[in-house]
Amino acid sequence: MKVDLNCDLGESFGNYTIGNDNNIIPVITSANIACGFHAGDENVMYQTIKLAKENNIGIGAHPGLPDLQGFGRRNMDLSLSEIYNLVVYQLGALSAFCQTQNVKLNHVKPHGALYQMGARDSEIAQAIAQAVYDVDNTLIFVGLSNTLLISEAQKIGLQTASEVFADRRYEESGQLVSRKESDALITDTNEAIEQVLNMVKNQKVIAKTGKEIDIQADTICVHGDGQNALVFVTQIREKLSNEGILITKLGG
Amino acid sequence: MKVDLNCDLGESFGNYTIGNDNNIIPVITSANIACGFHAGDENVMYQTIKLAKENNIGIGAHPGLPDLQGFGRRNMDLSLSEIYNLVVYQLGALSAFCQTQNVKLNHVKPHGALYQMGARDSEIAQAIAQAVYDVDNTLIFVGLSNTLLISEAQKIGLQTASEVFADRRYEESGQLVSRKESDALITDTNEAIEQVLNMVKNQKVIAKTGKEIDIQADTICVHGDGQNALVFVTQIREKLSNEGILITKLGG
Amino acid sequence: MKVDLNCDLGESFGNYTIGNDNNIIPVITSANIACGFHAGDENVMYQTIKLAKENNIGIGAHPGLPDLQGFGRRNMDLSLSEIYNLVVYQLGALSAFCQTQNVKLNHVKPHGALYQMGARDSEIAQAIAQAVYDVDNTLIFVGLSNTLLISEAQKIGLQTASEVFADRRYEESGQLVSRKESDALITDTNEAIEQVLNMVKNQKVIAKTGKEIDIQADTICVHGDGQNALVFVTQIREKLSNEGILITKLGG
Amino acid sequence: MKVDLNCDLGESFGNYTIGNDNNIIPVITSANIACGFHAGDENVMYQTIKLAKENNIGIGAHPGLPDLQGFGRRNMDLSLSEIYNLVVYQLGALSAFCQTQNVKLNHVKPHGALYQMGARDSEIAQAIAQAVYDVDNTLIFVGLSNTLLISEAQKIGLQTASEVFADRRYEESGQLVSRKESDALITDTNEAIEQVLNMVKNQKVIAKTGKEIDIQADTICVHGDGQNALVFVTQIREKLSNEGILITKLGG
Repeated sequence: MKVDLNCDLGESFGNYTIGNDNNIIPVITSANIACGFHAGDENVMYQTIKLAKENNIGIGAHPGLPDLQGFGRRNMDLSLSEIYNLVVYQLGALSAFCQTQNVKLNHVKPHGALYQMGARDSEIAQAIAQAVYDVDNTLIFVGLSNTLLISEAQKIGLQTASEVFADRRYEESGQLVSRKESDALITDTNEAIEQVLNMVKNQKVIAKTGKEIDIQADTICVHGDGQNALVFVTQIREKLSNEGILITKLGG
Repeated sequence: MKVDLNCDLGESFGNYTIGNDNNIIPVITSANIACGFHAGDENVMYQTIKLAKENNIGIGAHPGLPDLQGFGRRNMDLSLSEIYNLVVYQLGALSAFCQTQNVKLNHVKPHGALYQMGARDSEIAQAIAQAVYDVDNTLIFVGLSNTLLISEAQKIGLQTASEVFADRRYEESGQLVSRKESDALITDTNEAIEQVLNMVKNQKVIAKTGKEIDIQADTICVHGDGQNALVFVTQIREKLSNEGILITKLGG
Repeated sequence: MKVDLNCDLGESFGNYTIGNDNNIIPVITSANIACGFHAGDENVMYQTIKLAKENNIGIGAHPGLPDLQGFGRRNMDLSLSEIYNLVVYQLGALSAFCQTQNVKLNHVKPHGALYQMGARDSEIAQAIAQAVYDVDNTLIFVGLSNTLLISEAQKIGLQTASEVFADRRYEESGQLVSRKESDALITDTNEAIEQVLNMVKNQKVIAKTGKEIDIQADTICVHGDGQNALVFVTQIREKLSNEGILITKLGG
Repeated sequence: MKVDLNCDLGESFGNYTIGNDNNIIPVITSANIACGFHAGDENVMYQTIKLAKENNIGIGAHPGLPDLQGFGRRNMDLSLSEIYNLVVYQLGALSAFCQTQNVKLNHVKPHGALYQMGARDSEIAQAIAQAVYDVDNTLIFVGLSNTLLISEAQKIGLQTASEVFADRRYEESGQLVSRKESDALITDTNEAIEQVLNMVKNQKVIAKTGKEIDIQADTICVHGDGQNALVFVTQIREKLSNEGILITKLGG
């Protein structure tokens, strides 16, 4: 039994620093690296790949919408070809830094609004996945578990990894409870860790209604910033290890 | 005897159109395609590579400074690592579109201020050339003839192509006469064509002082916009062909 | 009886030119000048205000979404405070150029997706109009006739001008027929001119159903680019003048 | 005897936070607020002016080069009209937020590379100062003491405020010792405070050569970030107050 711990990295831009990359990297197994559209820039990408390589973690591209001010979190009305092209562009840019540093690009995870739009809209999911496939069909495609991102990427022929959240509640449908609802977040650490263990060991999660539903859990999304982020990730690692679950990068 | 005709293409952006790509493409042999920093965007890159592929011309990356408003023509004080990284980024982005359309990226030519800065500064020339080499050491590096761009790229191990201009006058040093001087441009078409023939056939050019100097002429820079651009290129092609010179893409 | 002819101007950016500003300006009475978010930049703004002043036409701000690549035509999920602030910012920037050139800023017309979003959503319309009011409550607010842009701006206390289109068909509700429908556009010049005359003289328009409805027509949107744009505007001017209708800038 | 303490504020952008605005504001008397070109955005500008107003400090515009990635610190080859226009634009944008919040814009201080370029080049200094004058000739122009920024702004007719640094050493010429030299910075807090007192009380500073030279000190540049920044500013305030020097905003 195994699972990956992924975290968004390389989100700094120019003089602006976001995140806690140096500290979180030792406790994760995969990095989703921003590619310059919603965050990151070419200098940050260089540094982040260097750091990821030194720590021997899986390197992934984290393409987003062209909206630095909105951090790629504001939905934009883009055509399917615009979406396809922005994924190709960002993947290529990040790949080049992998090439110059002689490391392998391992996975792709869409960011923010692009991720959400793809989870809910099959055509957008197809456009994203097709772009990934056309650039490199050996890449592992990371998407929200139980959504169109996963099913459409599989149809296209990509290897997928289903992402789950430790601290988010789920609907019976398998979707995340919207952040607009009061019970969207699990704030109790023990409860969050129990949820993770259940997802990884049993491929199950208890929905907010109390009903247990199926869920695929190949990778857990963790965060590097926030006061307790590092402590929380360390606790999850320990519990997973104690249960004999191998924590390893995607495809590892 | 052979020579390449190269032209900057794909310089449109979003709703903004520059150039005359559809008309110039049939008469050139290599395209320098903007990569999104000084001009171009991911949608334009997709279309331009498609067009170049259909016309079977050589495809090149045309990386520039991060200055869309200034079209990459305003010098910027960048560090060497910033220059290295912006070339890697743009090369990767364009390469990905070549990959998705199953065509080969053939050459790289720095744009505008980046080209001028590299021609005059050995460290900048090295940073650019090293970036190209590290991304793909089989790429042909296009730089201004008789300048540091060529010599530094060769030291690094890249195959180079020396670029000349039909309508620009040369100093005895082999440099271009600055555009700030009144005699910088050759406005007489016949004189321009004579200069091209001399450069390609004899590897010679008559400097503005009247002295004939050596010059390497692997590729001629032509333009797609401007009133007589198309006519002029067509005339050059005809004269070169009449002289038995093969007009073919770089490395072709 | 009087009417204004307004046109979007100053949409060029850096090295990129859009429009036909020099030629259209003599036949219009109001200019909507892009403010640097969806089009235009500070240098274009300077030049466009200079040109508008020389031609003694009404000067308006044309604020848009922060999306140069999409020309402000792609909907974006912005908060109301984001919308308020981007209008304030752009209005201020354009006002400063009016100040330095000693001309009056006369009106404001939201651009593209911002205009469409405001026409359909009362909160967005309020955010836009409140920003205008707070910067300068003497500005004339231009919005699509029969929409929330007009009614909300009036509630806030702004003087409004209802905009109509010569070449667009209308629904019975007073809304424009969507461009996605085949009969959205009036392609016959005479029919378009008849529609304009009916709107200006009688405050009526024949909807696509054949039913005549009420419409307020204070200003007609015309375009400077397109093959017949100039001819069309000239014809409209002539017909309006022949009918004794004064063509004059908003508030003039 | 009086002096102003100014600090760059509002340098955050979108999701990116820089600085320590809430904590530094109570101990300064003037804020230089970024205007969206090198840092800041319309939402940050709104918030920062609100904060400055609540704390009753002087509000200034802090226009910079159009280079968010380089934080306006990389020299760019701009024409004088480009410089003029980018100052007008940014001043106008910030002024509008002052207008909507009913506070007065009090001063202008160019940022980063623009400040340095203006200090050394009379034409650039003129372009900046003329833009300020043309937008609002009552604004106080802040520039580096003993430089062309001050002399050119005075020639144009602006009221000026000469800026000094507590922790930078000076050349005999009155210029700052370049940061590239090892003795550029004063790291001893007491020495820095002594320098400030000498500048404010006696209009003198001891150059690095040991010679005492004249210097005008109307405002002291302080920083909000950095580990000891807040402590340092508090100490300076205390010493100045103990000496009977009034700490008050420019023109106050």
